[in-house]
Amino acid sequence: MKKLNIGIIGYGFMGRTHSNAYRQVAKFFDTEYQPVLKAVCARSEDRVKAFADNWGYESYETDWRKLIERDDIDAIDIAAPNHLHREMAIAAAAAGKMVLCEKPLGINPSEGREMADAVNKAGVPNFVWFNYRFVPAVALVKKFVDDGKLGRIYHYRANFLQDWCIEAGVPQGGEGLWRLDVNSAGSGVTGDLLAHCIDTALWINGPIESVSAMTETFVKERMHQETGKVEEVGIDDACAFLARFKNGTLATFESSRYARGHTAGYCLELNGESASVGWKLPDLHLLSYFDDNDGSAVRGWRSIHVSQNDGEHPYMANWWVPGIVVGFEHTFTHGAYQFLKSLEDNTHDRQYSNFEDALKTDEVCAAVLESARTQSWQTIA
Amino acid sequence: MKKLNIGIIGYGFMGRTHSNAYRQVAKFFDTEYQPVLKAVCARSEDRVKAFADNWGYESYETDWRKLIERDDIDAIDIAAPNHLHREMAIAAAAAGKMVLCEKPLGINPSEGREMADAVNKAGVPNFVWFNYRFVPAVALVKKFVDDGKLGRIYHYRANFLQDWCIEAGVPQGGEGLWRLDVNSAGSGVTGDLLAHCIDTALWINGPIESVSAMTETFVKERMHQETGKVEEVGIDDACAFLARFKNGTLATFESSRYARGHTAGYCLELNGESASVGWKLPDLHLLSYFDDNDGSAVRGWRSIHVSQNDGEHPYMANWWVPGIVVGFEHTFTHGAYQFLKSLEDNTHDRQYSNFEDALKTDEVCAAVLESARTQSWQTIA
Amino acid sequence: MKKLNIGIIGYGFMGRTHSNAYRQVAKFFDTEYQPVLKAVCARSEDRVKAFADNWGYESYETDWRKLIERDDIDAIDIAAPNHLHREMAIAAAAAGKMVLCEKPLGINPSEGREMADAVNKAGVPNFVWFNYRFVPAVALVKKFVDDGKLGRIYHYRANFLQDWCIEAGVPQGGEGLWRLDVNSAGSGVTGDLLAHCIDTALWINGPIESVSAMTETFVKERMHQETGKVEEVGIDDACAFLARFKNGTLATFESSRYARGHTAGYCLELNGESASVGWKLPDLHLLSYFDDNDGSAVRGWRSIHVSQNDGEHPYMANWWVPGIVVGFEHTFTHGAYQFLKSLEDNTHDRQYSNFEDALKTDEVCAAVLESARTQSWQTIA
Amino acid sequence: MKKLNIGIIGYGFMGRTHSNAYRQVAKFFDTEYQPVLKAVCARSEDRVKAFADNWGYESYETDWRKLIERDDIDAIDIAAPNHLHREMAIAAAAAGKMVLCEKPLGINPSEGREMADAVNKAGVPNFVWFNYRFVPAVALVKKFVDDGKLGRIYHYRANFLQDWCIEAGVPQGGEGLWRLDVNSAGSGVTGDLLAHCIDTALWINGPIESVSAMTETFVKERMHQETGKVEEVGIDDACAFLARFKNGTLATFESSRYARGHTAGYCLELNGESASVGWKLPDLHLLSYFDDNDGSAVRGWRSIHVSQNDGEHPYMANWWVPGIVVGFEHTFTHGAYQFLKSLEDNTHDRQYSNFEDALKTDEVCAAVLESARTQSWQTIA
Repeated sequence: MKKLNIGIIGYGFMGRTHSNAYRQVAKFFDTEYQPVLKAVCARSEDRVKAFADNWGYESYETDWRKLIERDDIDAIDIAAPNHLHREMAIAAAAAGKMVLCEKPLGINPSEGREMADAVNKAGVPNFVWFNYRFVPAVALVKKFVDDGKLGRIYHYRANFLQDWCIEAGVPQGGEGLWRLDVNSAGSGVTGDLLAHCIDTALWINGPIESVSAMTETFVKERMHQETGKVEEVGIDDACAFLARFKNGTLATFESSRYARGHTAGYCLELNGESASVGWKLPDLHLLSYFDDNDGSAVRGWRSIHVSQNDGEHPYMANWWVPGIVVGFEHTFTHGAYQFLKSLEDNTHDRQYSNFEDALKTDEVCAAVLESARTQSWQTIA
Repeated sequence: MKKLNIGIIGYGFMGRTHSNAYRQVAKFFDTEYQPVLKAVCARSEDRVKAFADNWGYESYETDWRKLIERDDIDAIDIAAPNHLHREMAIAAAAAGKMVLCEKPLGINPSEGREMADAVNKAGVPNFVWFNYRFVPAVALVKKFVDDGKLGRIYHYRANFLQDWCIEAGVPQGGEGLWRLDVNSAGSGVTGDLLAHCIDTALWINGPIESVSAMTETFVKERMHQETGKVEEVGIDDACAFLARFKNGTLATFESSRYARGHTAGYCLELNGESASVGWKLPDLHLLSYFDDNDGSAVRGWRSIHVSQNDGEHPYMANWWVPGIVVGFEHTFTHGAYQFLKSLEDNTHDRQYSNFEDALKTDEVCAAVLESARTQSWQTIA
Repeated sequence: MKKLNIGIIGYGFMGRTHSNAYRQVAKFFDTEYQPVLKAVCARSEDRVKAFADNWGYESYETDWRKLIERDDIDAIDIAAPNHLHREMAIAAAAAGKMVLCEKPLGINPSEGREMADAVNKAGVPNFVWFNYRFVPAVALVKKFVDDGKLGRIYHYRANFLQDWCIEAGVPQGGEGLWRLDVNSAGSGVTGDLLAHCIDTALWINGPIESVSAMTETFVKERMHQETGKVEEVGIDDACAFLARFKNGTLATFESSRYARGHTAGYCLELNGESASVGWKLPDLHLLSYFDDNDGSAVRGWRSIHVSQNDGEHPYMANWWVPGIVVGFEHTFTHGAYQFLKSLEDNTHDRQYSNFEDALKTDEVCAAVLESARTQSWQTIA
Repeated sequence: MKKLNIGIIGYGFMGRTHSNAYRQVAKFFDTEYQPVLKAVCARSEDRVKAFADNWGYESYETDWRKLIERDDIDAIDIAAPNHLHREMAIAAAAAGKMVLCEKPLGINPSEGREMADAVNKAGVPNFVWFNYRFVPAVALVKKFVDDGKLGRIYHYRANFLQDWCIEAGVPQGGEGLWRLDVNSAGSGVTGDLLAHCIDTALWINGPIESVSAMTETFVKERMHQETGKVEEVGIDDACAFLARFKNGTLATFESSRYARGHTAGYCLELNGESASVGWKLPDLHLLSYFDDNDGSAVRGWRSIHVSQNDGEHPYMANWWVPGIVVGFEHTFTHGAYQFLKSLEDNTHDRQYSNFEDALKTDEVCAAVLESARTQSWQTIA
C-alpha cells in the first residue's frame, strides 16, 4: 500500500465531492495507492480551516503557490473556478506534481493546449473530473457500444437542462455564482454543462467532425455580486447544436439553465442498428435499453436497474448488494479509483479523461461558440 | 355473411360501449355474423328514442319482455343493473335467444346458477361482458402463461382502485348511481370491480381454492336518490382478500372507491419462475415484462408497447399500424368479435366468459363476502 | 341536421382513419352537419369496391376526376400520395367542393401556394389533416399556453422518431411504400414527420423565424418496387434542425426512420417561465406537467391522465368516463368534428389547419431542406 | 465535540453499512457527539482484522463478551444474526453501554420484551436499525401525514419483494445465508422484510389492531451449508396479510423472495382523503404524490425528486445540491445522525425506533405468523 498525498485547491461543491471521494475510495475499492488528505488551500483562512477540520485534512494553505511548492504533496487537485485552471495546472506540472483538474480544462482550447503540453512535458499523471463517465449506467453504455451491442450508431442526442437562472434577480459572479461570470467561467452552459455531454460523447462515440450551433442569453443584465453593479451578462444561458460525428452519426445537443422543471437534467440517448440506450441523471441508476433481437411479442424498452454485483454492472460489485443504488457522489469515488488504478498499472484500460482528452472537449466547445457567433457550420480539426 | 339481430336492454355507460362495439366490429374484424342494431329497450321513452336515433337502432321498446318476445331479435344483450340480470336472462333463454349479459352474472351464486342452467337448458350461446380479457395486453399475458413463458406462478396480485366515493355527499341509488345501492348492485366493489379481477385471474391462472377477506363501508349513510332519505349504505366501499389458487399460487386482491388518485385503476401482476408480467388499466397499451433468461447485464423490466400488427400482439393486426394505440372502447369490440367468431366455429378457442365461467366468479365473490362477514377463511367448492 | 356528402380519394392507412372518423363523429359529438360516406375513389376496382363494402360507402369511382364532377358530393377528401395533392385539390376547389387534404399540403411551398389560392378563390372550406392537434393532451398544451400557464416560453423541442427503414432490404416506392419515393413524397421525414411537429409548433407557439438543419440518407440505394431496379434514394432518412421562433423561443427538432426502438415516437416539450409540459405519442393520453408555483416540498413532474370528462380536458367529455382512454384513431374523429363544427358557425374558434396554415408548414419544411442543402441558416419570410 | 466510542459486533452487509455511516455522519451533519470506530468483533480473527484495517477500527475482538467488558467502549452495535440479539443486548445494557441493534429486535416478542426491559432498567440509550425511516422520501411521507396533507387515511399497502430464493439450489444457513435458517433468523420474510414494512407503517400510521395472514414455504427442503445435509426449510418464503389499523385504515402487506423481477422491492402507498403518496425502494429518491386540491385540468400523480436542499426535503440540505441523489447507504448515515442528535438533546423529536418501538413490530410479526399458522384473525394487544 502506498500513500498518495493530496493537496486540493478549492472548497466549494467540487472541493466537497473530491474530498469525499478520497476518503471513501479505499474503503470500497482495492488500489495500491491510497489517498491522504494532506492539505486544502483557499483564500479565506477561517473557512479553509473549518473545511480542513471537517474533512480531516492534515493542514491548510491560503496561497495555492505555497501548496504547490510543498514537498509532502504528490498530487494537486484543482477545484477552483475555470479561469484559474491554466496557471495552477502549469505550475503544478512544473513542480512535478500529478495534476487533477475540474472540468472544463481551460476556458478555451489555447489554454487547454498549454495545460496539456505542460503535463506532457513534465510527464506527470493527469486527470480531468468528467465525473459522468463514472456513473455505472453510463459506463455500461460505453461497454455496450464497445461490445458492438448497438451496431452502427445512427443517432446520438444529449441535453443537460437546469432551471436555476430563470429569476432575473439571481446575481452574477461572487461566492457560489462564478459560473455566471464570463470572466471566471469562460462561457455559460457550453463550458459548464455541454462540456460534460461532449466528453461523454467523444468517449463513447469518437470524434465530432462539425457543428452548427445557436446560443442565447435570455437575461441580458444582472447585478454583479462583487461590484454591486448591474452589468451585461457575458455568458450563454442556453446553447443547442447539431453535430456530425466522424463515424457518420447524426447528433443533437442542448443545454439551458432556463428549462423549467429540470434541476440537473443530463440525459443522453443512442440509437444503433441493433439496439438503443438511454440514460438520465435524475434517475442515474437506471439504463433504458431496447434490443431489436428480442422477438416482436416481447420487444420493448427495458429499464435496467444498474445494481448487479456480479461484475456485469461497472463498479457495483464494490458497493452493497444487488438492487441497492448508489448516488451522485459515487461518480467521484469511481473517478478517484480509476486514477489511482492507472498509477499502479499503466496498461490499465484508461476510463478517465486526461488533459489531452479534455482538450478535445475544449475544442468542440470553442467550435460550438464560434458557430453560434458566426451562424455557420464549424469543422473540428 | 349472416346478420345477427341485437336487442339491447339499457342505455347507460355499458349500453353505449356495447352499441359502439356492434357498430365497429365488422369494419375491423372478419366474421361470418355481423351484428344489426335492431332494437334498444329502456323505460324512458324519450331517452330510449334519442339513444336509438343516435346509435342507429332500427327500433326501440320500453318493456323488456316485449323485446324478448320479438321474432326479429336473435340475441338479447343485458346492460341493465345487476338485480335485473337473472329474470331477463332466464326469460331470454326461454325464448330461445342468445344471451349476452353485463357482469357480474347474478347478484349471488344462486342467481348465477339459475341463469347458467337456463342458457344450458335452452342450448343458446351465452356470453358475459368481462371486457378486460380483451385488452390486447391482458390477452398477451394469457398467451405468455399458456405458452409457459412464466413457468410456475408463485404470486398473483390484482387491485382495482377508484376514488369517486370519497365525498360523503354522493347519493346512493338512482340514475347513474345504482352501483351504490345494495338492492340494485348486490354488493359494492366486490361485484363491480373485484369481479373483473377474479374473472381475469381464473382465466389466466385457474381456480381459486380459498380466501380470507375484509370489507369496509367508510361512509355509513348516504342520501338515497329515489327516496330522498338518508339511508344506511349496504354495499362494501372497499374489499381486500388473500387467496390461494389450486395450483399453489399465493394471491392478494384489493378494491376500493376511496383510493385517492386512482380513477379506473385496475392493475395486475404475476410473478413466475422464469418471468413476470404486470399491467395497469390507466396505460392499457403497455405490458411490463421481466424475463430472467436475459443476461444479468441487460436484465430489466421491459415496457412492451402492445401495438405490433404482425400477429404477435392479440387483436392489433386488425387495427392500424405498429406503434399506434387503441383505447378502452376497443375491448368491447374485441369481445363482440370473440362472441361472433364462436358462433361460426364451435371449435374456436373460446376466449370469453360464458355463464358457467361467470358463475365461478360469482362463487368467489360470495366466498369473499362471506369470509369478510365471518372473519374466517372460506373454501371455494 | 344536414348531410355532408363525402367523396374520398385513397384507401390506404389514411383512407381508413378518415372513414372511421366520418362514421364515428356524429355518434359522440353534436354537430349540425353529419358526414355521409358517399363515394370512395381509387384505381384498383376490386380493391376500392371491397373498401366501399367494408366501410359502407354508397358507391365508388376509379377516376378521381369523375368523383370531383359528381353533383352528389359536397366535400372531397384527398388521402392520396403527396405528389397528387395539388392537382386534385385545385380541381376540387374549381368544382366548388369543400376540400380536405392529407398533410403535407403540397410537396413544396409553390404547390402549396397554388392550392391555397385555389380554395381561397373558390371560397370553399378547406382543411388539412394535421391530426395531432386533436390529441386531447396536445390540445390541452395549446390551452395551457393560451391561458398563460407557462408564461414566456424559453424552449421548444420536438422529435418524431421511427425505426422501420433500418433494414436495407426495404424497397422504395410502390404499394404502401410511396413515402420512400421522392417523386411521390417530395421529401422523406421532413414532409412526412417533421411537418407534423412543425404544424403543432406553429399552432401553439407562433411563427418560426429561422432554421439551421442537417439531413442524411443512410441507405443510399434501394430497390424500387415499381421498376424492380436498385435506384438512388432521393429522400431524407433523417433530419434535425435548430430553430428560433419570432417570440424568442429556442427550439430543436429532429426526425428519423433509423431510431431503433421508436415506432411512432412523436414527442414534444415546452419549457416556460412558470411551467413546462411534455407529451409523447406512445402514451398519447398522458401529459407531463411541471408547475413552478407548487411549493418546493411537493414540486414535481405530474403525469396528467387526460381523461377528465368535466370539460377541462379537450374532447374527453364526449367519450366515456373519467380514467378511460381513447386511442390514435380518435384524433381523426376530433378533426372531423372541428371541421364540421366550423361549417355551422364561422365564428367558431378554428382549431384545425386550413390550407393557409398548412402552407406555412410547407414553407418551414422547404427552409429546412434548403438549409441542409446549403449548410446555412435560412430565414422564413 | 464529544467522542462516542463504538464497538460493533458483526462484519457482514450490515456491519459495512453501519461502519460507513459512522465514518460519514460527522462530515455532513452537525452533531455534538462524533462516533469513533473503536473496535469490531467477530469470530474469525483473520477476517475481523481485515475488516478493522479496511474501515479504520482501532482494534478488534473475537469474543463479543470481551468487547462488552471494555471500558473504552460507549456503545455496542449489534450487527449479528437475529438469534444472538437478545443475549448480546442484555449483556451490553447490563454493562451500562448504549445499545444499537439490527432489526428485528428479537426473534419473538418475548425476547424483544426482555431486551426492552434490559435497556429500560439500565437507562441506556437504545436504537434499532430500521433504516427505511431515514430514506428522505419516506421521511417526507411521515411529514406529509403529520402535517395533515393526506387527511384521513383509508388505505395503506406495502410490500417487500425479492427473487433470490427461486433457485432450489440455494443452500440454507451458513456464511451469508443465515437468513434462510430458521434457527438463526427466527422467521423468513416476516422478520426480515415485513418487519421493515411494519415498522414504517406503525411510525407513519399508528398501531395495527388485527391481522389475517398466510405464509408459504415454496421450497420445502434445502441443503444446509453447515451440516452439508438436505434439511427441512423452517422459514416462510412468502407472507401476505390483511390488516386493520386502530385509526380505521385498511391495509395489505406482502413479502416474498420468489417475486421474479424484484431484487429489493420495498414499496408502499397511502391513500388519504385529500392526497395519496407512493414510494418504492428501487427509485428511492422519488416520491409519488397526488393532491386532490389541484384543479381537475392539472391533477395527476407527481414524481417528486426528493433532492431539494432548502430544508423542505428531509436530510437533503446536508448533502449536495438540488437535483442530486443520494443512495441506500445514506439511510444508515441518517440513522446514525438521529441517534447522535438524540443524545445531545433529549427533547429532540425522536425519529428512530427504540427498543420499545421495535418490540411493537415484533408483536405484529408474531401475530402475523400465528394468524398464518391458525388460519384465523389475530388481534394485537
